[in-house]
Amino acid sequence: MTTTATVSFGSDNHAGIHPAVLEAIGAANTGHVAAYGDDPWTQRLEQRFRELLGDVAAFPVFNGTGANVTGLSALLRPHQAVICAETAHVNTDECGAPERFTGAKLIDVATTDGKLTPALVERRLVGIGDEHRVQPRAVSITQATELGTVYSLQELAGLASFCHANGLLLHVDGARIANAAASLGCDLRALTAGAGVDVLSFGGTKNGLMGGEAVVFLDPGMARDYLYIRKQSMQLNSKMRFVSAQLLALLDDDLWLRSARHANAMARRLADGVAGVPGVEVVHPVESNAVFARLPAAAIVPLQERYPFYVWDEAEHVVRWMCSWDTREADVDAFAGSVRELA
Amino acid sequence: MTTTATVSFGSDNHAGIHPAVLEAIGAANTGHVAAYGDDPWTQRLEQRFRELLGDVAAFPVFNGTGANVTGLSALLRPHQAVICAETAHVNTDECGAPERFTGAKLIDVATTDGKLTPALVERRLVGIGDEHRVQPRAVSITQATELGTVYSLQELAGLASFCHANGLLLHVDGARIANAAASLGCDLRALTAGAGVDVLSFGGTKNGLMGGEAVVFLDPGMARDYLYIRKQSMQLNSKMRFVSAQLLALLDDDLWLRSARHANAMARRLADGVAGVPGVEVVHPVESNAVFARLPAAAIVPLQERYPFYVWDEAEHVVRWMCSWDTREADVDAFAGSVRELA
Amino acid sequence: MTTTATVSFGSDNHAGIHPAVLEAIGAANTGHVAAYGDDPWTQRLEQRFRELLGDVAAFPVFNGTGANVTGLSALLRPHQAVICAETAHVNTDECGAPERFTGAKLIDVATTDGKLTPALVERRLVGIGDEHRVQPRAVSITQATELGTVYSLQELAGLASFCHANGLLLHVDGARIANAAASLGCDLRALTAGAGVDVLSFGGTKNGLMGGEAVVFLDPGMARDYLYIRKQSMQLNSKMRFVSAQLLALLDDDLWLRSARHANAMARRLADGVAGVPGVEVVHPVESNAVFARLPAAAIVPLQERYPFYVWDEAEHVVRWMCSWDTREADVDAFAGSVRELA
Amino acid sequence: MTTTATVSFGSDNHAGIHPAVLEAIGAANTGHVAAYGDDPWTQRLEQRFRELLGDVAAFPVFNGTGANVTGLSALLRPHQAVICAETAHVNTDECGAPERFTGAKLIDVATTDGKLTPALVERRLVGIGDEHRVQPRAVSITQATELGTVYSLQELAGLASFCHANGLLLHVDGARIANAAASLGCDLRALTAGAGVDVLSFGGTKNGLMGGEAVVFLDPGMARDYLYIRKQSMQLNSKMRFVSAQLLALLDDDLWLRSARHANAMARRLADGVAGVPGVEVVHPVESNAVFARLPAAAIVPLQERYPFYVWDEAEHVVRWMCSWDTREADVDAFAGSVRELA
Repeated sequence: MTTTATVSFGSDNHAGIHPAVLEAIGAANTGHVAAYGDDPWTQRLEQRFRELLGDVAAFPVFNGTGANVTGLSALLRPHQAVICAETAHVNTDECGAPERFTGAKLIDVATTDGKLTPALVERRLVGIGDEHRVQPRAVSITQATELGTVYSLQELAGLASFCHANGLLLHVDGARIANAAASLGCDLRALTAGAGVDVLSFGGTKNGLMGGEAVVFLDPGMARDYLYIRKQSMQLNSKMRFVSAQLLALLDDDLWLRSARHANAMARRLADGVAGVPGVEVVHPVESNAVFARLPAAAIVPLQERYPFYVWDEAEHVVRWMCSWDTREADVDAFAGSVRELA
Repeated sequence: MTTTATVSFGSDNHAGIHPAVLEAIGAANTGHVAAYGDDPWTQRLEQRFRELLGDVAAFPVFNGTGANVTGLSALLRPHQAVICAETAHVNTDECGAPERFTGAKLIDVATTDGKLTPALVERRLVGIGDEHRVQPRAVSITQATELGTVYSLQELAGLASFCHANGLLLHVDGARIANAAASLGCDLRALTAGAGVDVLSFGGTKNGLMGGEAVVFLDPGMARDYLYIRKQSMQLNSKMRFVSAQLLALLDDDLWLRSARHANAMARRLADGVAGVPGVEVVHPVESNAVFARLPAAAIVPLQERYPFYVWDEAEHVVRWMCSWDTREADVDAFAGSVRELA
Repeated sequence: MTTTATVSFGSDNHAGIHPAVLEAIGAANTGHVAAYGDDPWTQRLEQRFRELLGDVAAFPVFNGTGANVTGLSALLRPHQAVICAETAHVNTDECGAPERFTGAKLIDVATTDGKLTPALVERRLVGIGDEHRVQPRAVSITQATELGTVYSLQELAGLASFCHANGLLLHVDGARIANAAASLGCDLRALTAGAGVDVLSFGGTKNGLMGGEAVVFLDPGMARDYLYIRKQSMQLNSKMRFVSAQLLALLDDDLWLRSARHANAMARRLADGVAGVPGVEVVHPVESNAVFARLPAAAIVPLQERYPFYVWDEAEHVVRWMCSWDTREADVDAFAGSVRELA
Repeated sequence: MTTTATVSFGSDNHAGIHPAVLEAIGAANTGHVAAYGDDPWTQRLEQRFRELLGDVAAFPVFNGTGANVTGLSALLRPHQAVICAETAHVNTDECGAPERFTGAKLIDVATTDGKLTPALVERRLVGIGDEHRVQPRAVSITQATELGTVYSLQELAGLASFCHANGLLLHVDGARIANAAASLGCDLRALTAGAGVDVLSFGGTKNGLMGGEAVVFLDPGMARDYLYIRKQSMQLNSKMRFVSAQLLALLDDDLWLRSARHANAMARRLADGVAGVPGVEVVHPVESNAVFARLPAAAIVPLQERYPFYVWDEAEHVVRWMCSWDTREADVDAFAGSVRELA
């Protein structure tokens, strides 16, 4: 797949660096600064998260897998387990890093829409106290999900309550938390502290950064060992100021929300643009920046020759189209036109 | 330690991004590009390494610990062991990541100058074939070493020969490989393929990058599982083009060598500047960009109040001064003046 | 649960030591003997397995979990995966030991009868060659299964062929391999080498040993690192002669088969004894030494007060009754009588 | 090495099962009993340890490596470290199992006599609170040591005090704790709870058991997760009654102490028997059941042809001779005679 000078619907990580973020990198390039986070940008970033979320502890890391694995690692002992959706990124797209690094087991649950519910979790709470069984200790959800759906605030709060009533902690893979916030029209606090989330992977890379995420512990007590965990898991950035500066730029003037709103709107526009096309069926609610569609089998390859995107389910001819902070209306319209033409 | 607008001799990772590297990041920000290394920059980078080193396989990663751990991981099974100097970064400064991730044991060897020799390694080759003992499989050296010394090409070749004759592979932590090349006046091939090295962590971050290293397998056959290892160890960058572009900028026009030569020269200048000062003793040969000096105990804190640097050995009053690509002659001279004044 | 002087249908590991096995332990107690397997009993055991199975490598270990985990460990790298039934012991009853120790992921598959098929495995062969996905490398089956069913020789051979055609190795958890052999009326070679099995956990503890299993590599080349793996996984017995002597006693005069035939016959007798009882339904084919039955909910606790056994599925009121080498006909008949009385 | 019908000075694990222990195994073979420790023998064993040691938690495991690794595992997080002697069994003879299973690092310290001191430990307490460094959390000592020496009660208490004052826990590898008790003429409580020990591997196999050790937590609070750790590390015995019955037999009528006193006396007798022989030098104090001697190089192999034993240090011609519960005076005298003859 050669994609230079191409309009891609393959992933939101096909997009580049938002200009404001690139500018922030340059602005942080001010000579000698202490390494490993002992710098003003990182301190300001932690303060910024505390303004947004209350008494939290936040730590920049390199990438989403690193955020998920190190965040979960702080919650888990190796004989424990994480309950997650079968479609969860931690389950399918991290090459076993969560199991390898935490020693714990992922218990995956089939869902129709990528979302866990208390009832789905409850069915996996078996063997509690039985030494032969791994002991569920955390529930990990993705918000927005890998299927483009979004947990409502009520769903989140219900799941968090259920977790806490059952001795479980709630972890949120928020690689696209901004898209969820934009979708729900709420702020970050409502989505996390307000809903009872315990640990959040706050996504940056898919939302216009060059690279960077933050692990946010809503209860700083859970972060007691985190500095060591981050270092031992190879996620400690020496020139951390440049990641912190990117994250600060994302949080400034709600750039994170504005970019996500745009990406969501483009996905909406794309779904609308293909609505009613014979043979094309949008198979999941379009609640964030993804559109999942069933296409006529013969249309897939010709369409991919014009625009990169992934086939999600070979057998079902379901494809995934992602929009990003820089997806343009004209490109969406042209793409929708190609779909109509080829379907 | 507030270090903004400060001249630091604390570490070469206190320096920022070289302007040519920052420019390269901007130049790679060209819209949609495939993720995870399926991009022209990463392809060109691999090609560049092959021009420099022959038939090798090279992979960008986030940071030095990641490079070392994933590189070693490709060589090792968990019941094996790595022989390294007691002072090696893998042994002292990676929070146990090599053991945690590979499962293997580090066998550390005391040295006077941070350098292993065949004789030092040979003494640890005990219990070969004994199921109760971990089985040495790799030797890991740092070039330039953590003590600022440099293995000569002859020393490298001798160690590599010894390793291969004993069923061991030779891993080089090259976080400062550029400083070694500059010191020896040789090219990268002489330092690696030419000397018999098997795997190299090619350092970028300490030599002017915003962040990025490359793992280079001199024999591509050893990289067979590396893509999975990199992903599972959370070192796979989604927007990889931006790391590859930085590394390309470093290799272009020998920027890596020019920057290292400058840093080395600054260290030399600093060592010369404090030569003969009563009570000040340079304790290791100054062969790269570090100066290790014993100071009068009372001089250390006052000097640190003017310039950040680390105390290397509390008991011995030995301190470490690092120079970087952006260390200025005037700052070195002023610092040496402070040493003379306070010692 | 106090079970002394009780007749238990709880598990075949509730039974004690077969007299011939206890005698063999005593007979091996002959003064000083080299440790760690360098003894005549262990050598004879390996030879015995080679007489039975051809050119194999066999290694005694302590317990079933140890056999499974170390056997799988010899096959796997941490970025790989094992496909197994959801009900597999490795998946549900080893407290995550396989994941913790191998680093690899278990991919569990729902089945109706505890048995995998090529079709069930094939559906999980996704993402081959994709660095984000764990790479399936082994299929692990249990023979006889945790549900008391038995793979036919044809099913085994079909699965092994499918595995090998797809780059997968076939691991058999044979904690009850003897019961399978007794059920099928075949010898051990037909069940393993003859069917294409790659690695076998040969069960002893559940078949009358005090404690001991053997890991058998049908291709000795796969055992290359096994001595180290066994030691590193804490499964190397110093006074190994006593485990080897037990296993030898089990293999002598087909004690393993005779004991298993008896246990199977007792399960058959028990199933027959409850056949036709209103409200009692045997829910899986009785092909080895287990009977799974749905009972009237109210009958379960009163029956457990007379005889220990486990509830397998709380929601479905399904219980498991296990027979062992020492289960007596009279006890089976009395137990069946209690079922009839209480149901 | 064929050793049947041989008198061995190779290891105390070359000896067989003490008759009282074998009898206890037979006596426990009483039909159906619940598995995994839910049996009267295991309950009585825990009670017995509580009579001896106060409010402790004790758990049978298979072997010494299993005892050490699971005991340490209960104390450690992966970013932590264990300080131990370079000669410690955990460091040299467990094939990296401690590192592999706990994820933590062993920091080994050179000693002259196999014994750690507060001063030796203190020098390794560097980088506390530094995220780049593994964080020492436990000190592991062997009592009696691998060199046959014994910590005095005062040394133990001093080390324990130092540990606790520095946030460290004290782990004792007591594979030969009985030999230490016999040497010091004290009871088990004085050696453990009385001295401030936190976790003990209580050795059985080397003291006349067929196989079995116990992990004893002097503070039961530290055992909170231990049941899961034991299972996940493959050390949970299904027919546990037979290990517990062995350990009970060992504790009955002070069999453990009587056997150890005998073995110690035999080592003393052997050392005395070779005293003054020209060219033979006993190189460590003979405080338990081991004699370490430097021999004329040419005498070693001829002596090994008569009696199995290990060369401890090839370069120094130092050998190790172990005595056990069943070593006979006449054999010691004959062996000493051979030494005199061949030296």
